[in-house]
Amino acid sequence: MKEKKYYSYSEFRDDLKLLVQKIDYKFDTIIAIARGGLSIAQLLGEYYNIRKVYSINTIGYNGEQKLDKTEIFNIPNLDNSQNILIVDDIVDSGDTLILTLNKLKEIYPQKKFKTASIFYKPSAIIQPNYSIKEAKEWIEFFWSEDLKLI
Amino acid sequence: MKEKKYYSYSEFRDDLKLLVQKIDYKFDTIIAIARGGLSIAQLLGEYYNIRKVYSINTIGYNGEQKLDKTEIFNIPNLDNSQNILIVDDIVDSGDTLILTLNKLKEIYPQKKFKTASIFYKPSAIIQPNYSIKEAKEWIEFFWSEDLKLI
Repeated sequence: MKEKKYYSYSEFRDDLKLLVQKIDYKFDTIIAIARGGLSIAQLLGEYYNIRKVYSINTIGYNGEQKLDKTEIFNIPNLDNSQNILIVDDIVDSGDTLILTLNKLKEIYPQKKFKTASIFYKPSAIIQPNYSIKEAKEWIEFFWSEDLKLI
Repeated sequence: MKEKKYYSYSEFRDDLKLLVQKIDYKFDTIIAIARGGLSIAQLLGEYYNIRKVYSINTIGYNGEQKLDKTEIFNIPNLDNSQNILIVDDIVDSGDTLILTLNKLKEIYPQKKFKTASIFYKPSAIIQPNYSIKEAKEWIEFFWSEDLKLI
């Protein structure tokens, strides 16, 4: 059975401090892959004083031929954006990130996209441009756990 | 000069625990007023197991006749939603919330909307359906402050 690791807000805050030191990219828009990237997008939006903080949604389901499929919806309008940072909590298989990135590049071929996450996995099919630490266990993020203990 | 109050993650978490006990509304979609409502939306989305977590953006500017104006953009598509909870960190003057609510009701007159925030002010022109505490000072939210101290 896979080890679990609780990831607290204070670790998150400290990792974001490292992340902003790594990011050498001037962007005008942040897109959070929901739900995982929402808090990251909020803190980075505040830090960089960016108000164009959007979200995009993905949903995975089993298709008719039992293939795992992921669909992208709620795609933000980027007409007034040029350099975009896409954020997520973890790049696991990389499926969600690559699908999101390809979809956005297809709709907005003239825009520049870079990606950031806190956790990455060496086995993923895509690595984010900026990330902090390898996910060696199953991560239980504070935003999934902290309201459970009511 | 107005008093300032730092609002930490642990206070936020505890207030959200109170908020979910207050909310007696079955909703299928959460809309965060960005940026303030993003973390709230993430934690509530996880708690209620709702994947339709969207964001909406507002921007305030001074109009030609020096009137303060607020504009709504990045309006999510709600075709597949019925009962929506709009969340924000604080309802201060209430301008943003009422504008957002009216805009969404205008586009989606058949949908049901309710609103939630952590902080409210008795002087606001609209009160959220669910909220936790009165803002008596200027609130410095952890998501605005915590990356500053690098």
